[in-house]
Parts: sequence; C-alpha cells; structure tokens
Amino acid sequence: MTRIVLGLEYDGSAFHGWQRQKGLPSVQATIEDALARIAAHPVRLHCAGRTDTGVHASNQVAHFDTSAERPLNAWIRGLNALLPPSVAARWAKVADARFHARYSACRRRYRYVLLNRPERPGLWAGRAGWFHLPLELEAMQTAAAFLLGAHDFSAFRAAGCQAKSTVKLLTHVALRREASRVAGDFFVFDFEASAFLQRMVRNLVGALVYVGKGAWPPQHLKNVLESRDRALSAPTFPPDGLYFQGARYDPSFGIPAPDWDD
Amino acid sequence: MTRIVLGLEYDGSAFHGWQRQKGLPSVQATIEDALARIAAHPVRLHCAGRTDTGVHASNQVAHFDTSAERPLNAWIRGLNALLPPSVAARWAKVADARFHARYSACRRRYRYVLLNRPERPGLWAGRAGWFHLPLELEAMQTAAAFLLGAHDFSAFRAAGCQAKSTVKLLTHVALRREASRVAGDFFVFDFEASAFLQRMVRNLVGALVYVGKGAWPPQHLKNVLESRDRALSAPTFPPDGLYFQGARYDPSFGIPAPDWDD
Repeated sequence: MTRIVLGLEYDGSAFHGWQRQKGLPSVQATIEDALARIAAHPVRLHCAGRTDTGVHASNQVAHFDTSAERPLNAWIRGLNALLPPSVAARWAKVADARFHARYSACRRRYRYVLLNRPERPGLWAGRAGWFHLPLELEAMQTAAAFLLGAHDFSAFRAAGCQAKSTVKLLTHVALRREASRVAGDFFVFDFEASAFLQRMVRNLVGALVYVGKGAWPPQHLKNVLESRDRALSAPTFPPDGLYFQGARYDPSFGIPAPDWDD
Repeated sequence: MTRIVLGLEYDGSAFHGWQRQKGLPSVQATIEDALARIAAHPVRLHCAGRTDTGVHASNQVAHFDTSAERPLNAWIRGLNALLPPSVAARWAKVADARFHARYSACRRRYRYVLLNRPERPGLWAGRAGWFHLPLELEAMQTAAAFLLGAHDFSAFRAAGCQAKSTVKLLTHVALRREASRVAGDFFVFDFEASAFLQRMVRNLVGALVYVGKGAWPPQHLKNVLESRDRALSAPTFPPDGLYFQGARYDPSFGIPAPDWDD
C-alpha cells in the first residue's frame, strides 16, 4: 500500500460541504469516486479541514491509501480529467504511514474575503462575503489582536459543534484591504490556528464587522471572547467568502509548505 | 420619458451572451425583464459592448427609456432584489436624449485574466483563461506594443463578424503579472480601443500567448497584423477569462468615468 497526499482546490458553491453524505453532492465523494476510477479499487480520502456547505478551498490537503502503482503525475492528470470543472488537483506526494492529513496537521489557515460596497456582489456571487456599510480597518485590526494566543473560543462556536476541546491556539491574524486588478476591492481576513471550532472563522468575521461598522469598540471583542457565550456575539457570516488555505505539517513529512503570506 | 444609464456587473458563465435570443438565457433579457417589473412597462436596454457567450462584465454600461418616475436608487435596489445572484447593478444616472450607451462611447476596455500553471483551474473555473506552459512576459509586452494605433485588425476577427469597418484604434495595451491574495497568480491583459471586432480580444490573447510560449518572436505579431489574414494567426482563447470593463464618454454626458488603472 502507498499513502498519497493531494493538494486540492475547489469552489464549494455546488457542494454540501466536504463530507460524504447520502444523496447530496460532496467534495469528498466527488474526489473519492474519481480516485476509485484511477486506482480501480474503492478509495477513502481524509482531509486536513472538513469544509462546510458553500466553503471553498485553495489548498485542501488530503491523503488516501492505494495498492495501485501509478506515477504521481498520473493521479493529478487523471483527477483533472475526471473531476468537474470546479474541483482541481494541484499536487501529489508520497507520504509514509505515520502521516495523516487531519491528525498530523499542526496549523491550519482560513481566509475570509469580504466585498465592501453598497451593492451586493454580482461577479463574486457565492465566492465573497458582502457588507454594505463602510468598515474601519484599524478598529478591526485592534480588535483582532485580542484573539491571538490560546483561548476558549466558545463564544464563536456553532451550536452543533462537536469539538472535544473549545480551547484553540490562534497563531496569526491579519486584516487588510486589497484592491486587485483581477478581483476588485475587498477586505481580506486571515486566521491561522492549531485547529478551528465549527463556524469559528465565520463567527469571528461577524464580530469583527460589528467592530468595523462601529457597533462595538475594539475592546468589546475581548469581553465577548472572555464571556465564552455565543449569545453575546454577532451573527455568523455566510460561507461564500470562506477559503480553506492549507495546513502545515512537520517538515519531516515532506508535504509542500503552504505559500501563506504574513 | 427619462433616459436612465446603468452600470452593470455580471458573471457571463450562465448566459448565452448579452443579446436577447429566443429560448436562451441572455443578460439583456434578464435585466430587461427585471426593469419592466420595476417600471411597469416593457423596457428596451442598449449596452456599450455586447458580450459573447461566457464573457463577463465588471462595468457594462447600458441605457433605457422609461415613463416611470422613480428615485435613481430605486432602480438599483429594485434590480438587485429581482436579478439573479450573478448579475448586479452598481450605479444609475439620468442622461439626456443625445446619449446612447453604444453610439456615444468613444473608448471601450476589455481585460483578459489568464491563469498560468500546469494544472487547470478549479476555483477559477469559468472565470479565467488557462495556459499550462511558462510564458515570457517581456516578449509578450514587446509584441503587444505593435498593436497600438489605428490598424486593420482583420487577422484577429471572427469569421462571423459583421463590423462595417475592420480598422480600429487601439489606444492602450498593458500586460502584467498579478499575484493577488484574493485571486492567485495570473497574467492580466488590458486592451482599450475605439471599438473591437468580434472575438478580437480573445484572438489577440491567443496570438500573444504564441509569443509568450516562444512559438513566435515578438516581431511576428506585426507580420500577422499586417497580413490581415485570420488563417495566419493563432487559435482563439476561450471566453472564460474575458471581462468587459466599461466605456468612456464625453464628460458632458456626466456618466461615471471608469476606474481604469493604466
């Protein structure tokens, strides 16, 4: 058996999330079915970060075991021939049996892309969040700094979240305006942590937007965090703007390092 | 009667182009139908640049006449409530009867967004062109400079093109690499001209990619241009990466100037 690790990119708009579910299109089932055709045996895929319905990925990391002997490039070419246009394979590596895409990941990163203008998105429908009122970048940056470090993030946890521990280590937060020739004018929110609770990023973005629009002073985010009370926080932002950007592993595994810009 | 001018944004993936056609979804019919509901009378929309199937717009300019008396904001809000998610109205202005979105336009601009990497797009499926081999930016820039000025662009014209004159004035060409946090790594091709022949931008991108991959020296683009022979040029690039970016009018019309970055 060979353990193969894949770098995957997808637009989550058409899927009911990563996880295979009976009768609903999922990213996992779509890729597993394509891999099974290439391998000529059933394949089970494990990913670094299971994305919810409508959430995208620029560099999902996932592994599977196979008895098929194929050059690494054949997996990439085969997947990109068999997968629907909104899902693509970027890279493939062989890993040893100690490696697990989910359990070996020591850091994960998410990005939230927010279109900030009075009119709703058209070109970016399904692929960016949207807020219609002006936002104060500096106030949001001040508030975001309170999130760094190890905290109980219960105030930003979905009701159905099944994580055993609500304490997560947030190692990086960056908020910036980005005006891009390709994309237009956005706020970009980056979060890196040991792991995330369900909907944590979308809840954090909701809270930061409350600061940005002036409803909360930046310090209030600290109070909400310390309250551990979801009811005191702001509404969840929609999945449209959320991108899973990859995971970091111990270098000994030889998995391509994510090109995160800090 | 009041003449109203709109700024419109759309993802062309789901449409058979701008122009209304029986039994096929078009951008024109979609917006005319929404306007008719707001105006409570049939509406005919005229645009600055009729986009082909699968071509997008970040700032299409279009006008219509109405006997309905509505505040300008009501047209925007009404459209954004009635239109499908992939089409949005950005702005509205009142213009006098001399103004015509198509015939008054003195400049039009298109952008082509090209993903340049070995693997096909996933996240950007339908919204970027793709080329798998490395491209030489400087060679393409040298070649593009030969296109500036007034030329007979017959070598870059679609077989079915019905333009009366094949001579167009190309006033601006810019090629750049863009690495964006939102978007990834792209080549961005900008073209501004008095007007464009059918598929002219997609044919020019095809020819520039021939230069970029080393199949033609930059000077060969000049030979192809001067030949006026479509058969001597390179294949047409797909519509996925093409965006209509707006039109420029005489300032006396008071139409918002496009925010083109040169």
